[in-house]
Amino acid sequence: MRKLTGKELAAAIKTQTAAEVAAGPQPRLAVVVATDDEASLWYVRSIAKAAAGLGIAADLVDLGPGARAEQIRETLARLGADAGVHGVMLQTPLPAGISAQEMAAAIDPRKDIDGANPLSLGRLAAGLPAFVPATAAAVMALLDHYGVELAGRRAVVVGRSTVVGKPLAHLLLDRHATVTVSHSRTRDLAAVTSAAEVLVVAVGRTGLIGAEHVAPGAVVIDVGTNPTGDGGLAGDVDFDAVAGVAGALTPVPGGVGPVTTALLLRHTARAANLP
Amino acid sequence: MRKLTGKELAAAIKTQTAAEVAAGPQPRLAVVVATDDEASLWYVRSIAKAAAGLGIAADLVDLGPGARAEQIRETLARLGADAGVHGVMLQTPLPAGISAQEMAAAIDPRKDIDGANPLSLGRLAAGLPAFVPATAAAVMALLDHYGVELAGRRAVVVGRSTVVGKPLAHLLLDRHATVTVSHSRTRDLAAVTSAAEVLVVAVGRTGLIGAEHVAPGAVVIDVGTNPTGDGGLAGDVDFDAVAGVAGALTPVPGGVGPVTTALLLRHTARAANLP
Repeated sequence: MRKLTGKELAAAIKTQTAAEVAAGPQPRLAVVVATDDEASLWYVRSIAKAAAGLGIAADLVDLGPGARAEQIRETLARLGADAGVHGVMLQTPLPAGISAQEMAAAIDPRKDIDGANPLSLGRLAAGLPAFVPATAAAVMALLDHYGVELAGRRAVVVGRSTVVGKPLAHLLLDRHATVTVSHSRTRDLAAVTSAAEVLVVAVGRTGLIGAEHVAPGAVVIDVGTNPTGDGGLAGDVDFDAVAGVAGALTPVPGGVGPVTTALLLRHTARAANLP
Repeated sequence: MRKLTGKELAAAIKTQTAAEVAAGPQPRLAVVVATDDEASLWYVRSIAKAAAGLGIAADLVDLGPGARAEQIRETLARLGADAGVHGVMLQTPLPAGISAQEMAAAIDPRKDIDGANPLSLGRLAAGLPAFVPATAAAVMALLDHYGVELAGRRAVVVGRSTVVGKPLAHLLLDRHATVTVSHSRTRDLAAVTSAAEVLVVAVGRTGLIGAEHVAPGAVVIDVGTNPTGDGGLAGDVDFDAVAGVAGALTPVPGGVGPVTTALLLRHTARAANLP
Protein backbone atom coordinates (compact mmCIF):
# COMPACT_ATOMS: atom_id res chain seq x y z
CA MET A 1 0.00 0.00 0.00
CA ARG A 2 1.37 3.34 -1.09
CA LYS A 3 0.85 6.21 1.35
CA LEU A 4 -0.01 9.33 -0.63
CA THR A 5 1.30 12.09 1.62
CA GLY A 6 0.75 15.70 0.59
CA LYS A 7 3.68 17.34 2.33
CA GLU A 8 6.26 17.19 -0.48
CA LEU A 9 3.74 18.35 -3.07
CA ALA A 10 2.56 21.18 -0.80
CA ALA A 11 6.17 22.24 -0.23
CA ALA A 12 6.86 22.24 -3.98
CA ILE A 13 3.77 24.36 -4.69
CA LYS A 14 4.75 26.79 -1.96
CA THR A 15 8.32 27.13 -3.24
CA GLN A 16 7.06 27.85 -6.74
CA THR A 17 4.45 30.28 -5.40
CA ALA A 18 7.02 32.13 -3.29
CA ALA A 19 9.08 32.63 -6.45
CA GLU A 20 6.02 33.98 -8.30
CA VAL A 21 5.29 36.30 -5.38
CA ALA A 22 8.86 37.57 -5.27
CA ALA A 23 8.71 38.43 -8.98
CA GLY A 24 5.58 40.60 -8.83
CA PRO A 25 3.61 43.02 -6.65
CA GLN A 26 2.77 41.71 -3.16
CA PRO A 27 -0.49 39.72 -3.29
CA ARG A 28 -3.06 40.42 -0.62
CA LEU A 29 -5.65 37.90 0.57
CA ALA A 30 -8.73 38.84 2.58
CA VAL A 31 -10.50 36.13 4.55
CA VAL A 32 -14.00 37.05 5.73
CA VAL A 33 -15.09 35.28 8.90
CA ALA A 34 -18.50 35.38 10.63
CA THR A 35 -18.22 32.65 13.22
CA ASP A 36 -16.71 31.92 16.59
CA ASP A 37 -16.19 28.26 15.70
CA GLU A 38 -12.73 27.45 17.04
CA ALA A 39 -11.77 24.96 14.31
CA SER A 40 -12.63 27.49 11.58
CA LEU A 41 -10.69 30.26 13.26
CA TRP A 42 -7.73 27.94 13.70
CA TYR A 43 -7.87 27.09 10.00
CA VAL A 44 -8.05 30.72 8.96
CA ARG A 45 -5.09 31.62 11.17
CA SER A 46 -3.11 28.74 9.70
CA ILE A 47 -3.77 30.10 6.19
CA ALA A 48 -2.67 33.58 7.26
CA LYS A 49 0.52 32.15 8.74
CA ALA A 50 1.28 30.11 5.63
CA ALA A 51 0.59 33.20 3.48
CA ALA A 52 3.04 35.29 5.50
CA GLY A 53 5.67 32.62 4.96
CA LEU A 54 5.41 33.11 1.19
CA GLY A 55 5.33 36.90 1.26
CA ILE A 56 1.55 37.13 0.80
CA ALA A 57 -0.32 39.61 3.00
CA ALA A 58 -3.43 38.17 4.62
CA ASP A 59 -6.17 40.15 6.34
CA LEU A 60 -8.69 38.58 8.63
CA VAL A 61 -11.99 40.45 8.24
CA ASP A 62 -13.91 39.30 11.30
CA LEU A 63 -17.61 40.21 11.22
CA GLY A 64 -18.39 38.12 14.29
CA PRO A 65 -20.94 35.34 14.74
CA GLY A 66 -23.82 37.83 14.72
CA ALA A 67 -23.17 39.14 11.22
CA ARG A 68 -26.20 39.72 8.98
CA ALA A 69 -26.41 38.60 5.34
CA GLU A 70 -26.39 42.18 4.02
CA GLN A 71 -23.25 42.95 5.99
CA ILE A 72 -21.42 39.92 4.60
CA ARG A 73 -22.50 40.74 1.06
CA GLU A 74 -21.42 44.36 1.38
CA THR A 75 -18.08 43.35 2.83
CA LEU A 76 -17.44 40.97 -0.07
CA ALA A 77 -18.47 43.65 -2.58
CA ARG A 78 -16.19 46.21 -0.92
CA LEU A 79 -13.23 43.80 -1.08
CA GLY A 80 -14.07 43.14 -4.73
CA ALA A 81 -13.86 46.85 -5.47
CA ASP A 82 -10.61 47.30 -3.51
CA ALA A 83 -7.75 47.20 -6.03
CA GLY A 84 -5.31 46.48 -3.19
CA VAL A 85 -6.97 43.11 -2.45
CA HIS A 86 -6.30 40.26 -4.90
CA GLY A 87 -7.87 37.24 -3.28
CA VAL A 88 -11.16 37.01 -1.34
CA MET A 89 -12.33 34.03 0.65
CA LEU A 90 -15.47 33.53 2.73
CA GLN A 91 -14.91 31.10 5.58
CA THR A 92 -17.73 28.80 6.67
CA PRO A 93 -19.75 28.20 8.78
CA LEU A 94 -21.87 31.33 8.50
CA PRO A 95 -24.51 32.42 11.01
CA ALA A 96 -27.63 30.21 10.96
CA GLY A 97 -29.96 30.84 8.02
CA ILE A 98 -27.36 32.48 5.77
CA SER A 99 -26.54 30.54 2.60
CA ALA A 100 -22.82 30.37 1.79
CA GLN A 101 -23.67 29.91 -1.91
CA GLU A 102 -25.81 33.04 -1.98
CA MET A 103 -23.16 35.08 -0.18
CA ALA A 104 -20.37 33.74 -2.40
CA ALA A 105 -22.15 35.15 -5.46
CA ALA A 106 -20.92 38.52 -4.16
CA ILE A 107 -17.25 37.52 -4.46
CA ASP A 108 -15.57 39.07 -7.51
CA PRO A 109 -14.87 36.05 -9.78
CA ARG A 110 -11.38 37.41 -10.51
CA LYS A 111 -10.58 37.27 -6.78
CA ASP A 112 -12.50 34.09 -6.03
CA ILE A 113 -9.43 32.04 -5.10
CA ASP A 114 -11.46 29.27 -3.48
CA GLY A 115 -13.88 28.98 -6.40
CA ALA A 116 -16.91 29.66 -4.19
CA ASN A 117 -18.91 31.94 -6.50
CA PRO A 118 -21.51 29.89 -8.42
CA LEU A 119 -20.18 31.58 -11.58
CA SER A 120 -16.78 29.96 -10.93
CA LEU A 121 -18.43 26.55 -10.55
CA GLY A 122 -20.49 27.08 -13.71
CA ARG A 123 -17.41 28.13 -15.70
CA LEU A 124 -15.55 25.07 -14.40
CA ALA A 125 -18.47 22.85 -15.45
CA ALA A 126 -18.61 24.54 -18.86
CA GLY A 127 -14.89 24.05 -19.43
CA LEU A 128 -14.07 27.76 -19.24
CA PRO A 129 -11.15 29.24 -17.23
CA ALA A 130 -12.08 29.72 -13.56
CA PHE A 131 -10.64 29.41 -10.08
CA VAL A 132 -11.32 25.88 -8.85
CA PRO A 133 -12.27 25.22 -5.19
CA ALA A 134 -8.93 24.59 -3.50
CA THR A 135 -9.86 21.25 -1.90
CA ALA A 136 -11.09 19.80 -5.20
CA ALA A 137 -8.00 21.15 -6.95
CA ALA A 138 -5.82 19.57 -4.24
CA VAL A 139 -7.33 16.14 -4.87
CA MET A 140 -6.53 16.43 -8.58
CA ALA A 141 -3.02 17.73 -7.85
CA LEU A 142 -2.35 14.76 -5.56
CA LEU A 143 -3.63 12.28 -8.15
CA ASP A 144 -1.37 13.88 -10.76
CA HIS A 145 1.60 14.07 -8.41
CA TYR A 146 1.43 10.34 -7.85
CA GLY A 147 0.79 9.60 -11.52
CA VAL A 148 -2.68 8.11 -11.04
CA GLU A 149 -4.25 7.39 -14.42
CA LEU A 150 -7.81 8.72 -14.78
CA ALA A 151 -8.86 8.44 -18.44
CA GLY A 152 -11.39 5.67 -18.92
CA ARG A 153 -11.22 4.63 -15.26
CA ARG A 154 -14.11 4.41 -12.80
CA ALA A 155 -14.03 7.18 -10.20
CA VAL A 156 -16.49 7.38 -7.32
CA VAL A 157 -16.93 10.53 -5.26
CA VAL A 158 -18.67 10.11 -1.91
CA GLY A 159 -20.27 13.43 -0.97
CA ARG A 160 -22.15 15.93 -3.14
CA SER A 161 -21.22 19.25 -1.56
CA THR A 162 -20.95 22.37 -3.69
CA VAL A 163 -17.43 22.98 -2.38
CA VAL A 164 -15.90 19.53 -2.91
CA GLY A 165 -18.01 16.71 -4.37
CA LYS A 166 -19.64 18.57 -7.26
CA PRO A 167 -16.57 20.42 -8.56
CA LEU A 168 -14.53 17.23 -8.18
CA ALA A 169 -17.02 15.34 -10.33
CA HIS A 170 -16.50 17.91 -13.08
CA LEU A 171 -12.71 17.83 -12.76
CA LEU A 172 -12.66 14.03 -12.95
CA LEU A 173 -15.03 14.09 -15.96
CA ASP A 174 -12.75 16.57 -17.72
CA ARG A 175 -9.99 14.02 -17.31
CA HIS A 176 -12.18 11.38 -18.98
CA ALA A 177 -12.96 9.29 -15.90
CA THR A 178 -16.39 7.67 -15.65
CA VAL A 179 -17.69 9.45 -12.56
CA THR A 180 -20.25 8.41 -9.96
CA VAL A 181 -21.40 10.73 -7.19
CA SER A 182 -22.81 8.98 -4.14
CA HIS A 183 -24.09 10.47 -0.88
CA SER A 184 -26.07 9.95 2.28
CA ARG A 185 -29.13 8.78 0.33
CA THR A 186 -27.21 6.19 -1.71
CA ARG A 187 -28.47 2.65 -1.18
CA ASP A 188 -25.77 0.01 -0.57
CA LEU A 189 -22.86 2.44 -0.46
CA ALA A 190 -20.32 -0.40 -0.31
CA ALA A 191 -21.57 -1.81 -3.63
CA VAL A 192 -21.13 1.59 -5.27
CA THR A 193 -17.74 2.48 -3.78
CA SER A 194 -16.21 -0.94 -4.31
CA ALA A 195 -16.67 -0.50 -8.08
CA ALA A 196 -14.21 2.43 -7.90
CA GLU A 197 -10.69 2.32 -9.25
CA VAL A 198 -10.30 5.81 -7.79
CA LEU A 199 -12.35 6.61 -4.68
CA VAL A 200 -12.59 10.10 -3.22
CA VAL A 201 -14.37 10.51 0.11
CA ALA A 202 -15.58 13.97 1.15
CA VAL A 203 -18.38 13.59 3.63
CA GLY A 204 -17.14 14.60 7.08
CA ARG A 205 -17.90 11.44 9.04
CA THR A 206 -15.10 9.68 10.88
CA GLY A 207 -14.51 6.12 9.73
CA LEU A 208 -17.37 6.11 7.19
CA ILE A 209 -15.32 4.07 4.74
CA GLY A 210 -14.02 0.68 5.86
CA ALA A 211 -12.33 -2.22 4.12
CA GLU A 212 -15.65 -3.51 2.80
CA HIS A 213 -16.12 -0.28 0.81
CA VAL A 214 -12.88 -0.55 -1.14
CA ALA A 215 -11.81 -2.68 -4.12
CA PRO A 216 -8.43 -4.39 -3.85
CA GLY A 217 -5.78 -2.09 -5.29
CA ALA A 218 -8.00 1.01 -5.49
CA VAL A 219 -6.60 4.52 -5.05
CA VAL A 220 -8.36 6.17 -2.10
CA ILE A 221 -8.29 9.91 -1.38
CA ASP A 222 -9.62 10.96 2.03
CA VAL A 223 -10.86 14.56 2.10
CA GLY A 224 -12.41 14.28 5.57
CA THR A 225 -11.04 16.45 8.37
CA ASN A 226 -13.02 15.56 11.46
CA PRO A 227 -11.83 16.97 14.80
CA THR A 228 -10.97 14.25 17.31
CA GLY A 229 -11.50 14.54 21.04
CA ASP A 230 -7.80 15.12 21.70
CA GLY A 231 -7.41 18.11 19.37
CA GLY A 232 -6.28 16.11 16.36
CA LEU A 233 -7.87 15.33 12.99
CA ALA A 234 -9.38 12.13 11.64
CA GLY A 235 -10.42 11.34 8.07
CA ASP A 236 -13.59 9.76 6.66
CA VAL A 237 -11.62 6.60 5.91
CA ASP A 238 -10.64 4.01 8.52
CA PHE A 239 -6.96 4.20 7.59
CA ASP A 240 -5.73 1.00 9.21
CA ALA A 241 -8.56 -1.14 7.85
CA VAL A 242 -8.46 0.29 4.32
CA ALA A 243 -4.64 0.21 4.18
CA GLY A 244 -4.94 -3.58 4.03
CA VAL A 245 -7.05 -3.45 0.84
CA ALA A 246 -6.29 -0.25 -1.09
CA GLY A 247 -3.38 0.14 -3.47
CA ALA A 248 -2.81 3.71 -2.34
CA LEU A 249 -4.30 5.92 0.38
CA THR A 250 -3.89 9.48 1.65
CA PRO A 251 -3.29 9.99 5.38
CA VAL A 252 -5.27 12.47 7.51
CA PRO A 253 -3.68 14.74 8.55
CA GLY A 254 -0.88 15.19 6.03
CA GLY A 255 -2.69 14.24 2.81
CA VAL A 256 -5.11 16.57 1.00
CA GLY A 257 -5.00 19.30 3.69
CA PRO A 258 -1.53 20.77 3.17
CA VAL A 259 -2.00 20.75 -0.60
CA THR A 260 -5.28 22.64 -0.23
CA THR A 261 -3.61 25.43 1.74
CA ALA A 262 -0.72 25.60 -0.74
CA LEU A 263 -3.15 25.89 -3.67
CA LEU A 264 -5.15 28.65 -1.98
CA LEU A 265 -1.93 30.64 -1.82
CA ARG A 266 -0.99 29.80 -5.40
CA HIS A 267 -4.43 30.97 -6.51
CA THR A 268 -3.93 34.22 -4.57
CA ALA A 269 -0.59 34.80 -6.27
CA ARG A 270 -2.14 34.10 -9.67
CA ALA A 271 -5.06 36.44 -8.91
CA ALA A 272 -2.54 39.18 -8.18
CA ASN A 273 -1.00 38.62 -11.61
CA LEU A 274 -4.19 38.51 -13.67
CA PRO A 275 -3.95 40.88 -16.63
CA MET B 1 -42.99 -2.06 -21.55
CA ARG B 2 -44.42 1.36 -20.90
CA LYS B 3 -43.98 3.90 -23.72
CA LEU B 4 -43.22 7.28 -22.18
CA THR B 5 -44.59 9.67 -24.78
CA GLY B 6 -44.14 13.41 -24.26
CA LYS B 7 -47.11 14.71 -26.18
CA GLU B 8 -49.69 14.85 -23.38
CA LEU B 9 -47.20 16.43 -20.96
CA ALA B 10 -46.12 18.97 -23.59
CA ALA B 11 -49.74 19.84 -24.27
CA ALA B 12 -50.44 20.32 -20.56
CA ILE B 13 -47.41 22.59 -20.13
CA LYS B 14 -48.47 24.61 -23.18
CA THR B 15 -52.03 25.02 -21.94
CA GLN B 16 -50.80 26.22 -18.58
CA THR B 17 -48.26 28.53 -20.23
CA ALA B 18 -50.90 30.02 -22.55
CA ALA B 19 -52.95 30.87 -19.48
CA GLU B 20 -49.95 32.54 -17.84
CA VAL B 21 -49.28 34.48 -21.05
CA ALA B 22 -52.89 35.62 -21.32
CA ALA B 23 -52.76 36.96 -17.76
CA GLY B 24 -49.71 39.19 -18.22
CA PRO B 25 -47.81 41.36 -20.70
CA GLN B 26 -46.93 39.61 -23.97
CA PRO B 27 -43.63 37.76 -23.60
CA ARG B 28 -41.06 38.18 -26.36
CA LEU B 29 -38.39 35.60 -27.19
CA ALA B 30 -35.33 36.34 -29.32
CA VAL B 31 -33.47 33.43 -30.90
CA VAL B 32 -30.02 34.28 -32.19
CA VAL B 33 -28.86 32.14 -35.11
CA ALA B 34 -25.47 32.10 -36.85
CA THR B 35 -25.66 29.04 -39.06
CA ASP B 36 -27.13 27.84 -42.31
CA ASP B 37 -27.57 24.32 -40.92
CA GLU B 38 -30.99 23.26 -42.14
CA ALA B 39 -31.88 21.11 -39.10
CA SER B 40 -31.10 24.02 -36.74
CA LEU B 41 -33.11 26.48 -38.79
CA TRP B 42 -36.01 24.04 -38.90
CA TYR B 43 -35.85 23.68 -35.09
CA VAL B 44 -35.79 27.43 -34.55
CA ARG B 45 -38.75 27.95 -36.86
CA SER B 46 -40.66 25.22 -35.02
CA ILE B 47 -40.04 27.06 -31.72
CA ALA B 48 -41.24 30.34 -33.23
CA LYS B 49 -44.38 28.65 -34.50
CA ALA B 50 -45.09 27.00 -31.15
CA ALA B 51 -44.48 30.37 -29.43
CA ALA B 52 -46.99 32.10 -31.70
CA GLY B 53 -49.56 29.44 -30.82
CA LEU B 54 -49.29 30.45 -27.15
CA GLY B 55 -49.32 34.20 -27.72
CA ILE B 56 -45.56 34.59 -27.29
CA ALA B 57 -43.77 36.81 -29.81
CA ALA B 58 -40.62 35.26 -31.23
CA ASP B 59 -37.93 37.08 -33.22
CA LEU B 60 -35.33 35.26 -35.27
CA VAL B 61 -32.10 37.27 -35.14
CA ASP B 62 -30.15 35.77 -38.03
CA LEU B 63 -26.48 36.79 -38.06
CA GLY B 64 -25.63 34.35 -40.84
CA PRO B 65 -23.02 31.60 -40.90
CA GLY B 66 -20.18 34.13 -41.27
CA ALA B 67 -20.89 35.89 -37.94
CA ARG B 68 -17.89 36.84 -35.81
CA ALA B 69 -17.67 36.23 -32.05
CA GLU B 70 -17.79 39.94 -31.24
CA GLN B 71 -20.93 40.37 -33.28
CA ILE B 72 -22.67 37.50 -31.49
CA ARG B 73 -21.62 38.81 -28.09
CA GLU B 74 -22.81 42.33 -28.89
CA THR B 75 -26.12 41.04 -30.18
CA LEU B 76 -26.70 39.06 -26.98
CA ALA B 77 -25.74 42.07 -24.87
CA ARG B 78 -28.08 44.34 -26.86
CA LEU B 79 -30.97 41.88 -26.36
CA GLY B 80 -30.12 41.73 -22.66
CA ALA B 81 -30.44 45.50 -22.42
CA ASP B 82 -33.69 45.59 -24.42
CA ALA B 83 -36.56 45.76 -21.91
CA GLY B 84 -38.96 44.59 -24.62
CA VAL B 85 -37.23 41.20 -24.90
CA HIS B 86 -37.82 38.68 -22.08
CA GLY B 87 -36.13 35.50 -23.28
CA VAL B 88 -32.86 35.12 -25.18
CA MET B 89 -31.59 31.93 -26.77
CA LEU B 90 -28.45 31.26 -28.77
CA GLN B 91 -28.93 28.45 -31.27
CA THR B 92 -26.04 26.10 -32.05
CA PRO B 93 -24.02 25.28 -34.07
CA LEU B 94 -21.97 28.48 -34.19
CA PRO B 95 -19.36 29.29 -36.85
CA ALA B 96 -16.18 27.19 -36.52
CA GLY B 97 -13.87 28.28 -33.71
CA ILE B 98 -16.52 30.12 -31.69
CA SER B 99 -17.30 28.60 -28.27
CA ALA B 100 -21.01 28.45 -27.43
CA GLN B 101 -20.14 28.51 -23.71
CA GLU B 102 -18.09 31.68 -24.07
CA MET B 103 -20.80 33.38 -26.11
CA ALA B 104 -23.55 32.29 -23.72
CA ALA B 105 -21.82 34.13 -20.88
CA ALA B 106 -23.15 37.27 -22.61
CA ILE B 107 -26.80 36.22 -22.16
CA ASP B 108 -28.53 38.11 -19.35
CA PRO B 109 -29.12 35.40 -16.70
CA ARG B 110 -32.65 36.74 -16.15
CA LYS B 111 -33.45 36.09 -19.82
CA ASP B 112 -31.44 32.88 -20.15
CA ILE B 113 -34.45 30.65 -20.79
CA ASP B 114 -32.33 27.74 -22.04
CA GLY B 115 -29.90 27.91 -19.10
CA ALA B 116 -26.91 28.37 -21.38
CA ASN B 117 -24.98 31.00 -19.41
CA PRO B 118 -22.32 29.29 -17.24
CA LEU B 119 -23.70 31.33 -14.34
CA SER B 120 -27.06 29.57 -14.74
CA LEU B 121 -25.31 26.19 -14.67
CA GLY B 122 -23.28 27.19 -11.62
CA ARG B 123 -26.38 28.40 -9.78
CA LEU B 124 -28.14 25.15 -10.65
CA ALA B 125 -25.16 23.17 -9.33
CA ALA B 126 -25.07 25.30 -6.18
CA GLY B 127 -28.79 24.80 -5.54
CA LEU B 128 -29.73 28.43 -6.23
CA PRO B 129 -32.68 29.54 -8.40
CA ALA B 130 -31.76 29.54 -12.10
CA PHE B 131 -33.17 28.74 -15.52
CA VAL B 132 -32.40 25.10 -16.25
CA PRO B 133 -31.41 23.99 -19.79
CA ALA B 134 -34.73 23.03 -21.38
CA THR B 135 -33.70 19.55 -22.52
CA ALA B 136 -32.43 18.59 -19.06
CA ALA B 137 -35.58 20.07 -17.50
CA ALA B 138 -37.70 18.08 -19.97
CA VAL B 139 -36.10 14.81 -18.88
CA MET B 140 -36.92 15.57 -15.26
CA ALA B 141 -40.47 16.66 -16.15
CA LEU B 142 -41.05 13.38 -18.02
CA LEU B 143 -39.70 11.31 -15.11
CA ASP B 144 -42.01 13.19 -12.73
CA HIS B 145 -44.99 12.98 -15.09
CA TYR B 146 -44.71 9.20 -15.14
CA GLY B 147 -44.04 8.99 -11.41
CA VAL B 148 -40.53 7.54 -11.69
CA GLU B 149 -38.94 7.33 -8.24
CA LEU B 150 -35.42 8.80 -8.07
CA ALA B 151 -34.37 9.03 -4.42
CA GLY B 152 -31.77 6.42 -3.59
CA ARG B 153 -31.88 4.90 -7.06
CA ARG B 154 -29.00 4.43 -9.47
CA ALA B 155 -29.15 6.82 -12.41
CA VAL B 156 -26.70 6.71 -15.29
CA VAL B 157 -26.34 9.56 -17.76
CA VAL B 158 -24.59 8.75 -21.03
CA GLY B 159 -23.07 11.96 -22.43
CA ARG B 160 -21.27 14.77 -20.62
CA SER B 161 -22.29 17.84 -22.61
CA THR B 162 -22.66 21.20 -20.92
CA VAL B 163 -26.19 21.54 -22.30
CA VAL B 164 -27.61 18.15 -21.30
CA GLY B 165 -25.43 15.60 -19.49
CA LYS B 166 -23.87 17.87 -16.87
CA PRO B 167 -27.00 19.80 -15.82
CA LEU B 168 -28.94 16.52 -15.76
CA ALA B 169 -26.40 15.02 -13.40
CA HIS B 170 -26.99 17.92 -10.99
CA LEU B 171 -30.78 17.68 -11.30
CA LEU B 172 -30.73 13.94 -10.60
CA LEU B 173 -28.36 14.47 -7.64
CA ASP B 174 -30.72 17.10 -6.23
CA ARG B 175 -33.40 14.44 -6.27
CA HIS B 176 -31.15 12.10 -4.27
CA ALA B 177 -30.29 9.65 -7.05
CA THR B 178 -26.82 8.10 -7.07
CA VAL B 179 -25.56 9.49 -10.37
CA THR B 180 -22.96 8.17 -12.81
CA VAL B 181 -21.88 10.13 -15.88
CA SER B 182 -20.41 8.04 -18.68
CA HIS B 183 -19.19 9.11 -22.10
CA SER B 184 -17.18 8.24 -25.18
CA ARG B 185 -14.09 7.42 -23.11
CA THR B 186 -15.94 5.08 -20.73
CA ARG B 187 -14.59 1.54 -20.79
CA ASP B 188 -17.20 -1.21 -21.04
CA LEU B 189 -20.19 1.08 -21.46
CA ALA B 190 -22.64 -1.83 -21.23
CA ALA B 191 -21.36 -2.76 -17.76
CA VAL B 192 -21.89 0.83 -16.58
CA THR B 193 -25.30 1.42 -18.15
CA SER B 194 -26.73 -1.95 -17.17
CA ALA B 195 -26.30 -0.99 -13.51
CA ALA B 196 -28.82 1.82 -14.05
CA GLU B 197 -32.35 1.79 -12.70
CA VAL B 198 -32.84 5.05 -14.61
CA LEU B 199 -30.80 5.46 -17.80
CA VAL B 200 -30.66 8.75 -19.72
CA VAL B 201 -28.89 8.76 -23.08
CA ALA B 202 -27.78 12.09 -24.57
CA VAL B 203 -24.96 11.46 -26.99
CA GLY B 204 -26.21 11.96 -30.54
CA ARG B 205 -25.37 8.59 -32.06
CA THR B 206 -28.13 6.53 -33.64
CA GLY B 207 -28.59 3.13 -32.04
CA LEU B 208 -25.75 3.54 -29.52
CA ILE B 209 -27.75 1.78 -26.81
CA GLY B 210 -28.94 -1.76 -27.47
CA ALA B 211 -30.56 -4.44 -25.35
CA GLU B 212 -27.20 -5.44 -23.87
CA HIS B 213 -26.83 -1.96 -22.33
CA VAL B 214 -30.06 -2.06 -20.35
CA ALA B 215 -31.06 -3.82 -17.13
CA PRO B 216 -34.41 -5.64 -17.16
CA GLY B 217 -37.12 -3.25 -16.03
CA ALA B 218 -35.00 -0.09 -16.25
CA VAL B 219 -36.50 3.29 -17.15
CA VAL B 220 -34.78 4.58 -20.30
CA ILE B 221 -34.95 8.18 -21.51
CA ASP B 222 -33.66 8.82 -25.02
CA VAL B 223 -32.51 12.41 -25.60
CA GLY B 224 -30.94 11.71 -29.00
CA THR B 225 -32.37 13.45 -32.07
CA ASN B 226 -30.37 12.20 -35.01
CA PRO B 227 -31.58 13.11 -38.51
CA THR B 228 -32.36 10.06 -40.62
CA GLY B 229 -31.83 9.88 -44.38
CA ASP B 230 -35.53 10.26 -45.09
CA GLY B 231 -36.00 13.52 -43.18
CA GLY B 232 -37.10 11.90 -39.93
CA LEU B 233 -35.48 11.64 -36.50
CA ALA B 234 -33.89 8.68 -34.71
CA GLY B 235 -32.83 8.40 -31.08
CA ASP B 236 -29.63 7.12 -29.48
CA VAL B 237 -31.51 4.04 -28.30
CA ASP B 238 -32.41 1.10 -30.54
CA PHE B 239 -36.10 1.29 -29.64
CA ASP B 240 -37.24 -2.13 -30.81
CA ALA B 241 -34.34 -3.98 -29.19
CA VAL B 242 -34.50 -2.09 -25.89
CA ALA B 243 -38.31 -2.27 -25.71
CA GLY B 244 -37.89 -5.98 -25.07
CA VAL B 245 -35.80 -5.37 -21.93
CA ALA B 246 -36.65 -1.96 -20.44
CA GLY B 247 -39.59 -1.35 -18.13
CA ALA B 248 -40.27 2.03 -19.74
CA LEU B 249 -38.82 3.90 -22.71
CA THR B 250 -39.34 7.23 -24.46
CA PRO B 251 -39.92 7.24 -28.22
CA VAL B 252 -38.02 9.47 -30.66
CA PRO B 253 -39.67 11.52 -32.01
CA GLY B 254 -42.48 12.22 -29.55
CA GLY B 255 -40.66 11.77 -26.24
CA VAL B 256 -38.32 14.39 -24.77
CA GLY B 257 -38.48 16.72 -27.79
CA PRO B 258 -42.01 18.15 -27.48
CA VAL B 259 -41.54 18.65 -23.72
CA THR B 260 -38.31 20.57 -24.35
CA THR B 261 -40.05 23.02 -26.67
CA ALA B 262 -42.95 23.44 -24.24
CA LEU B 263 -40.54 24.18 -21.39
CA LEU B 264 -38.62 26.76 -23.43
CA LEU B 265 -41.90 28.61 -23.84
CA ARG B 266 -42.82 28.20 -20.17
CA HIS B 267 -39.41 29.63 -19.25
CA THR B 268 -40.01 32.57 -21.60
CA ALA B 269 -43.37 33.29 -19.98
CA ARG B 270 -41.79 33.08 -16.52
CA ALA B 271 -38.93 35.38 -17.60
CA ALA B 272 -41.54 37.95 -18.68
CA ASN B 273 -43.08 37.79 -15.22
CA LEU B 274 -39.88 38.04 -13.16
CA PRO B 275 -40.18 40.80 -10.57
